[in-house]
Amino acid sequence: MTDKQVFKVNPPQFKNMISFEEAFKKVLDHPLSLGDERVTLLQGTGNILAEDIKADRDFPPFDRSTKDGIAINFSAIEREIDRFKIEGTLSAGMAQQTLSSDTNCFEIMTGAILPKDADTIIMYEETDIGNGWAILSKTPTKGQNIHAKGSDEKAGAVIVEKGTKITAAVIGVLASVGKTEVLVQKLPKVCVISTGNELVEVSETPLPHQIRKSNTLSLAAALEKVNITPTRLHLADNRTIIAKELQKALTEYDVLMLSGGVSKGKFDFIPDAMEALGVQKVFHHVAQRPGKPFWFGFQAAERKVVFSFPGNPVSTFANYHVYFLPWLAKVLGIEIEKHTVILEEPVQPHPRLTLFLQVRTEWRKGSFYAKLVQGNGSGDLVSLAKADGFICVPKGETQISERNVFWFIPCV
Amino acid sequence: MTDKQVFKVNPPQFKNMISFEEAFKKVLDHPLSLGDERVTLLQGTGNILAEDIKADRDFPPFDRSTKDGIAINFSAIEREIDRFKIEGTLSAGMAQQTLSSDTNCFEIMTGAILPKDADTIIMYEETDIGNGWAILSKTPTKGQNIHAKGSDEKAGAVIVEKGTKITAAVIGVLASVGKTEVLVQKLPKVCVISTGNELVEVSETPLPHQIRKSNTLSLAAALEKVNITPTRLHLADNRTIIAKELQKALTEYDVLMLSGGVSKGKFDFIPDAMEALGVQKVFHHVAQRPGKPFWFGFQAAERKVVFSFPGNPVSTFANYHVYFLPWLAKVLGIEIEKHTVILEEPVQPHPRLTLFLQVRTEWRKGSFYAKLVQGNGSGDLVSLAKADGFICVPKGETQISERNVFWFIPCV
Repeated sequence: MTDKQVFKVNPPQFKNMISFEEAFKKVLDHPLSLGDERVTLLQGTGNILAEDIKADRDFPPFDRSTKDGIAINFSAIEREIDRFKIEGTLSAGMAQQTLSSDTNCFEIMTGAILPKDADTIIMYEETDIGNGWAILSKTPTKGQNIHAKGSDEKAGAVIVEKGTKITAAVIGVLASVGKTEVLVQKLPKVCVISTGNELVEVSETPLPHQIRKSNTLSLAAALEKVNITPTRLHLADNRTIIAKELQKALTEYDVLMLSGGVSKGKFDFIPDAMEALGVQKVFHHVAQRPGKPFWFGFQAAERKVVFSFPGNPVSTFANYHVYFLPWLAKVLGIEIEKHTVILEEPVQPHPRLTLFLQVRTEWRKGSFYAKLVQGNGSGDLVSLAKADGFICVPKGETQISERNVFWFIPCV
Repeated sequence: MTDKQVFKVNPPQFKNMISFEEAFKKVLDHPLSLGDERVTLLQGTGNILAEDIKADRDFPPFDRSTKDGIAINFSAIEREIDRFKIEGTLSAGMAQQTLSSDTNCFEIMTGAILPKDADTIIMYEETDIGNGWAILSKTPTKGQNIHAKGSDEKAGAVIVEKGTKITAAVIGVLASVGKTEVLVQKLPKVCVISTGNELVEVSETPLPHQIRKSNTLSLAAALEKVNITPTRLHLADNRTIIAKELQKALTEYDVLMLSGGVSKGKFDFIPDAMEALGVQKVFHHVAQRPGKPFWFGFQAAERKVVFSFPGNPVSTFANYHVYFLPWLAKVLGIEIEKHTVILEEPVQPHPRLTLFLQVRTEWRKGSFYAKLVQGNGSGDLVSLAKADGFICVPKGETQISERNVFWFIPCV
């Protein structure tokens, strides 16, 4: 009996599972409204603006020299004057001066304010300077080398819109309009929870049947990349402790992110404990690999969200990137552009499961190519460390030929 | 006279400039050797490993169940036995048990250790459990559903190589082999220095001829993305203060990153001050736009590097991404893959300058497209905030048609 024939009879392990598309939609259908908060400027980096940023004055705020040279009044050129007496030197940061005569000039530095009654700047390279005089070696154009007041933005104009991600360039804009503090979208408070008696601390030497905690550390590192510093918590496989600790965590955090505890094993108490605490199961089991036993819940009364990922490292890691990051973008009201990649080899879809396959990517001439990274099942952390991300292979019967395009989920 | 004719006579402003390619090479020819340091695991995120990471034991460390179900000895199947008496239940984290007879089975949970004398796992979905017995509904294959000890990696094998960037997935691997601390490449200590009397603090209301500091804040935000928290310093346009403060900064930091102070204006004392402090000018002025007055220096005795960027925001920002980030990669011994992008419109190169043009990018079917963002010269911060990065347009005479491929420099 081939695998394909087995799948066709819809074996029990595919019952009660929802499709990846359905699961993804259900996750996005449960955003939180977290409001906004004021943070200091540099703390805002990477966050999402919760206010429109307006120019507090014209940009640039004055007619600004774009060259080192001399400032003149062009009417002199029209009268065929090509020698100017130097009245002084202006540098950036000096208050505005006035040209006393159109036969005079000021030496002027880049960034300095154009003197009153001057309208044209000639760079040093087109002049001869000596004995207090500047002689032009080239005929200028009226108004040249001036970055005009308000030519970038007028005072009061919205220069960065609410909802924009605060990049390093945006920090520069915020600084220039005097935002020592900035209103940003609040990020969820996240508690990352490991479960399972088999787990010991990183600092411990595990017995043969034990392993060290790794998923909560991976998740913490990944969350730091989106500016979230989670609290980490470990729950032993004990029904009473689990119930008590989960109740406490649900009070303190917006999101619980669990790893382990959602397979059908008898020692996995989490789903029951959740339902007892008023967290409704939105779904459990998704027709995907890795990450099939993903449990997602929502507590409507207090508006808390629970991502309960399977215990295997690759499952947890894939689910975090596939579900949590788009959910977070939804919460913050931003769009994440879907990246796509060209797979350089054929791939066999699964007839009933959406596959997330580890790939390594490469840029060539404006296109983005991927090759599969062979892992050894969902427990293989090491292969994961060699991948740049996952491609999403929708379920299907027939092999997909090489050079097809897939949704690419980059890993942080 | 057209612009092109002017350029052909090699006007003075293009003298003494080196090409972008030469400047780029010279910057990379001055790396620093900063050594390595031990940091705690999560502090290591985003850094570069300075040690090979070895498996401290086999991965996985035991024959591990990949399903919830029952564990049997396959010899029973060969004797056509299909009912097994359940001796107990094994979960992840329990020590190894022994199957007392091949007519018995253990219930076993995902992640649990295979009992001695068992060699095959049958998932619950293919059994009927009741009254202490498990009856098979499907014939198993010998050895199925077991993630074999050492099948991912053998103890002692190098599983993550020195020189690898510590991603969230790598953090998981490090945790699993017990690295509470990890040896990483040291990052340079950076002092970001603004110069110019026209600059006031973000918190101040500038007079008409003044502007608020923004470049050092942008640079600080950008450096944080590469795990460097710089010190910020401001120097007024005063020869004595500049000399004193620069001397102090050269003692304390590996890299000085200046903004402003390198044009030919009379109030720009920096290059002179640098040379007086033993920082040799490697070059000053690059045939590029923006960022032409870029000054790069090296102090050989103490091995310090000075990036002195022009004062205009776009110039500083472009130079940071174009020069500093590849330099940092060189220092850390890593390769940054050059991204490329397809420009969706024609572009006119400059006959003598390499251009770095602001673009907005978009993914379509595995390819990466860009459109130009129209800025208003190198002073226009606002247009910069709307761009995703720069494309590099090499110097040339003839227009480049649309859909050509360019080097893309993403902005952080």
